[in-house]
Amino acid sequence: MAVPSRKIPVAVLGATGLVGQRMISLLDGHPWFELAEVAASERSAGRPYAEAADWKLPGGAPRAAARMIVKPCDPRRVEAAVVLSALDSSVAGEVETAFRAAGRAVVTNAKNHRADDDVPLVVPEINADHLALIDVQRRRHGGFIVANANCSVIPLAIALAPLQRAAGVKRAIVTTLQAASGAGYPGVPSLDLIDNVVPYIGGQEREKIESEPLKILGALAGDRVAPAPITISAQVHRVPVIDGHLVSAHVETERPLDVAAARAALASFRGAPQELGCPSAPDPVCVVLDAIDRPQPRLDREAGRGMAVTVGQLRACPVLGLHFSVLGHNTLRGAAGGTILVAETLAAQGRLA
Amino acid sequence: MAVPSRKIPVAVLGATGLVGQRMISLLDGHPWFELAEVAASERSAGRPYAEAADWKLPGGAPRAAARMIVKPCDPRRVEAAVVLSALDSSVAGEVETAFRAAGRAVVTNAKNHRADDDVPLVVPEINADHLALIDVQRRRHGGFIVANANCSVIPLAIALAPLQRAAGVKRAIVTTLQAASGAGYPGVPSLDLIDNVVPYIGGQEREKIESEPLKILGALAGDRVAPAPITISAQVHRVPVIDGHLVSAHVETERPLDVAAARAALASFRGAPQELGCPSAPDPVCVVLDAIDRPQPRLDREAGRGMAVTVGQLRACPVLGLHFSVLGHNTLRGAAGGTILVAETLAAQGRLA
Amino acid sequence: MAVPSRKIPVAVLGATGLVGQRMISLLDGHPWFELAEVAASERSAGRPYAEAADWKLPGGAPRAAARMIVKPCDPRRVEAAVVLSALDSSVAGEVETAFRAAGRAVVTNAKNHRADDDVPLVVPEINADHLALIDVQRRRHGGFIVANANCSVIPLAIALAPLQRAAGVKRAIVTTLQAASGAGYPGVPSLDLIDNVVPYIGGQEREKIESEPLKILGALAGDRVAPAPITISAQVHRVPVIDGHLVSAHVETERPLDVAAARAALASFRGAPQELGCPSAPDPVCVVLDAIDRPQPRLDREAGRGMAVTVGQLRACPVLGLHFSVLGHNTLRGAAGGTILVAETLAAQGRLA
Amino acid sequence: MAVPSRKIPVAVLGATGLVGQRMISLLDGHPWFELAEVAASERSAGRPYAEAADWKLPGGAPRAAARMIVKPCDPRRVEAAVVLSALDSSVAGEVETAFRAAGRAVVTNAKNHRADDDVPLVVPEINADHLALIDVQRRRHGGFIVANANCSVIPLAIALAPLQRAAGVKRAIVTTLQAASGAGYPGVPSLDLIDNVVPYIGGQEREKIESEPLKILGALAGDRVAPAPITISAQVHRVPVIDGHLVSAHVETERPLDVAAARAALASFRGAPQELGCPSAPDPVCVVLDAIDRPQPRLDREAGRGMAVTVGQLRACPVLGLHFSVLGHNTLRGAAGGTILVAETLAAQGRLA
Repeated sequence: MAVPSRKIPVAVLGATGLVGQRMISLLDGHPWFELAEVAASERSAGRPYAEAADWKLPGGAPRAAARMIVKPCDPRRVEAAVVLSALDSSVAGEVETAFRAAGRAVVTNAKNHRADDDVPLVVPEINADHLALIDVQRRRHGGFIVANANCSVIPLAIALAPLQRAAGVKRAIVTTLQAASGAGYPGVPSLDLIDNVVPYIGGQEREKIESEPLKILGALAGDRVAPAPITISAQVHRVPVIDGHLVSAHVETERPLDVAAARAALASFRGAPQELGCPSAPDPVCVVLDAIDRPQPRLDREAGRGMAVTVGQLRACPVLGLHFSVLGHNTLRGAAGGTILVAETLAAQGRLA
Repeated sequence: MAVPSRKIPVAVLGATGLVGQRMISLLDGHPWFELAEVAASERSAGRPYAEAADWKLPGGAPRAAARMIVKPCDPRRVEAAVVLSALDSSVAGEVETAFRAAGRAVVTNAKNHRADDDVPLVVPEINADHLALIDVQRRRHGGFIVANANCSVIPLAIALAPLQRAAGVKRAIVTTLQAASGAGYPGVPSLDLIDNVVPYIGGQEREKIESEPLKILGALAGDRVAPAPITISAQVHRVPVIDGHLVSAHVETERPLDVAAARAALASFRGAPQELGCPSAPDPVCVVLDAIDRPQPRLDREAGRGMAVTVGQLRACPVLGLHFSVLGHNTLRGAAGGTILVAETLAAQGRLA
Repeated sequence: MAVPSRKIPVAVLGATGLVGQRMISLLDGHPWFELAEVAASERSAGRPYAEAADWKLPGGAPRAAARMIVKPCDPRRVEAAVVLSALDSSVAGEVETAFRAAGRAVVTNAKNHRADDDVPLVVPEINADHLALIDVQRRRHGGFIVANANCSVIPLAIALAPLQRAAGVKRAIVTTLQAASGAGYPGVPSLDLIDNVVPYIGGQEREKIESEPLKILGALAGDRVAPAPITISAQVHRVPVIDGHLVSAHVETERPLDVAAARAALASFRGAPQELGCPSAPDPVCVVLDAIDRPQPRLDREAGRGMAVTVGQLRACPVLGLHFSVLGHNTLRGAAGGTILVAETLAAQGRLA
Repeated sequence: MAVPSRKIPVAVLGATGLVGQRMISLLDGHPWFELAEVAASERSAGRPYAEAADWKLPGGAPRAAARMIVKPCDPRRVEAAVVLSALDSSVAGEVETAFRAAGRAVVTNAKNHRADDDVPLVVPEINADHLALIDVQRRRHGGFIVANANCSVIPLAIALAPLQRAAGVKRAIVTTLQAASGAGYPGVPSLDLIDNVVPYIGGQEREKIESEPLKILGALAGDRVAPAPITISAQVHRVPVIDGHLVSAHVETERPLDVAAARAALASFRGAPQELGCPSAPDPVCVVLDAIDRPQPRLDREAGRGMAVTVGQLRACPVLGLHFSVLGHNTLRGAAGGTILVAETLAAQGRLA
């Protein structure tokens, strides 16, 4: 491992949106990274960040960021070698490709490149070894892109990983109750979430939950990842919660796994970021709660400063074998914080030098 | 069938609570029944209903009910031969037993007697034939009790019934998002449901969802019901919704059943109340919606004046075979209205004479 | 008065929005009016209404409306002599002027023409006599425009009117808690209204509340209205409520007015629509509630089928003299229903012939 | 001033309730105070705190507190000389009197003794000089009680104080939008706050807002406080917000005060806790926001770690002269934090020695 000898300058693309704001907030005082540039759409470019961003987090924007002039998302205008992308998927694909072609290290929260064969889709506690695909990309494109996963997939994958190691995961039925912040701002109209829930989320949310965990839990096989042979069936819901995605999962394993063994596997789960001493790495990764009414978004989303996931409702399922509910903070662990943790893992592996 | 030649006088037990209020409201202007008496706890007894009940529905209490003096829940004080019970489960067991012993016809929303061998647990579209158990009870106890099912079970069972007939239901994984009114008033504290959801509901809600459908979908076998050989695994949630329980179900059938066939079976489902012309019987029973974001509690709970259920999210499930989401109005179809529909079915069968 | 001998065909402009949907819904089965045409933006024109409108009310669009082909908002394409406008203020000004120039009777919910000298701003119970300004407009423009008031102003003005008649209203301090539907759909982002309220409403909401009541409560003076000499100071809030604006008002009167007299004046308030037998006219107009915790949006907004207002919290105010809280259904009485009531009043006065 | 040379042991009465939990949380790592004992009702006494308290704040109870055995609220069982009371008003009166009689220093959040002539009702930035009444109490009773104010009164009084100093406050009309946590747990039923607001708060909330500021802003006059000659008229509302009371105030001053002068007075307001270096003292005390849509509970309640108040909507009022909206965190500044700040002020004044 390698604690960076001096702070690494990073640029944030899509800095004015909700995930971008979280990134700016997390980079304020970050021990390894230094926010050097902010970039956003043409509409925002040229304006001071404080003015361009409609800041929606408690408190205001960090002072240093507030004064920065927003740059356009163009590798000719953004200088940092390391780029964190909070871009909307409507533009992220091309912009990130351009930054990669310009030799930059791009760590992105956007979905566009997640399925690319040579782009690692990484939850660092699970599959930091997939980061070796970076070398494939460097050869092909100059720079590289590493993708953070979908905000519901991250807590789900974190809970599945120790079960997979312990007994092999075969099939899962997954139901989500997802927070409004997952749709950004303005996002979901209030008329849809007052006295209501919605059994649908746009942007192929259900399909992502059914597919992304397979790549994350898959095995590196040469220049690509062989997906894990798991079948997932999902139903998604938007609920009137600010932050915190709650995921109920019924899981069938290949080998028998009782509740006590599952509990032990979850509670002891650790990975690369913990071993490497990454500053945002939570420890424990999974907080297992035994109270009958947990996890709850408002009470549990801040566990591990929003970087841990919380697991409860652990019990035998008479249909598939095991049930648990897992909660993750969708804009911290599930988006901005998760992306930064990937970048920290890259830095600790010496891949950002 | 037999349209009652004159209105049947009924008493409502537990008339001051939320379900009792819904019953009072539905009986106002009912074509077959006439509210003759209201009864509640000792605390309320002797007071005018308008004063004893903290009315929580839009508008006020119906005028006739408002003036009634609340009676105690005692068969020596309540005269009606037909009694609708909206009692809390903490007292319903004994009170209903006493009314039955006094020869009354008790139709109850309470859970206490649902598992009794000789008490039919009835969703009239599905198992009106189970009402034959009344004769067993009459022989044993003088009167009889018929139970309405749990408020989440009713929409679930209504959606499962046509699938069972079409292809046999073998296993199901069920996740609920349940409205606050299901807990009555005061019920769930607002601190639990602002910016939050709770993955737990007291009173053995999960267990009821796993067990009651088996009795409802079971077959009458002499003096009892042989439960249907179905395995259900459930996870329940309380969400910030006033009325309307949303249930996501993944279902495995014994014989193949494609989505089109499932859709047709759901849309054409009818039962005894429709055939008998019961005034509260919805037609269609299941409203099937194809829009990608339905059913939604606020938009769909009033379907069929709150007596129909709404089904959507119908698609193939790669794990169990079929997925649907079903929504039912929990205090109408799921409680007060469901109980009254059972009473109407009894009346139409001539069992209240 | 004149009950129309046959139904008057009306067109709805802006039919696809939230207020337009309410109009369509209220016109379904209306005894005096018949929905003849629906018109909306160019984007919707040419498509069947059911497809063009993202229907957001419980249940679906009325069958007859659902099949209509949406027309553009152009007087050369819309034939009806009577036009109800639910247009957004970004386009209402010009469109309504064009319809008036084409000789049509336009009754509008939009704000654009409310302050025009020759346009009556009418709450029919209060100032139906202002409708005489129609003749001024007919002379000048061919047709005419009549404006319905702002959705918070309507309940406020209805409560102020009887007090003004009784004792003269001099000054008022007004605080609103307004529902999300007032902003239309998509309107207010859910991130602004989960665990939050917002002390601001765009579109000059505060200014309208401070000015519109003066014109409504003013006196017809030749070709214009002399505003009532009242000073109003307002603070507005958006709150997480679907429908129902709650307005707290502290009022100073010119002559002494005690609480009992105020109560009597409010409870007995009637006006032209009640005298003329308009089908949407509520009676009573003001429902006065004495319970300490009323009015409440969810419980009271449906009073008089959403056309009455509910008054409570009536007590002496040590600063200005009198306090009351008034609630009105903002998309019924405050928008679609209010606009239709104005049209009914015009019809009953024989002004739509 | 006097920074305590070693930590002062304190006991918390009513430690299991919502305000008690906040106190426990704020005392964890407090630089001047050390949580020595927790006390609560007989039902909780004898049990470990972690078990007795249904912890409702994000994260769990601090480790040290979690292990403490809850004591009864009896001065013979609680040893600490300094007692912070978060007791419910149903019991606080007698219990606090008993602790005072036992020579203890009681700083309380309960309302029971607020109006007592010799009990100072203190917002330390405003009237720390009233703490001199302690000496009166010591003479009469042995120990003393100091009261923290009502949770809505605190932000209101903090905003009024600089205006009073600048121009004299004569009359005010005040409307509150108060968070659910103000009612404790279970507190307000969710059925009252989903798609609803309630224009009433029990426990004489309105009366407290009309009276408490007069004592706080009053002048010490011998053995009592002469109330400030201000007339306040209030209307209160409960809204679906977790934490953060929003107060809209229209104010009439004795001498002219324009908006710029009011703004300057608010922004520069400081008091004893800031001068004495109290660890919980916010600086600035009032955060003045100029954005048109602030303050908002979710975005602004954490200002100054929940100890500052946020002021916005500052403008001329055509009726009374000046309008502002002020927001305060009701369980931090308005309850637990405010009580601790009073205790810190006492400590810094050497009154807890």
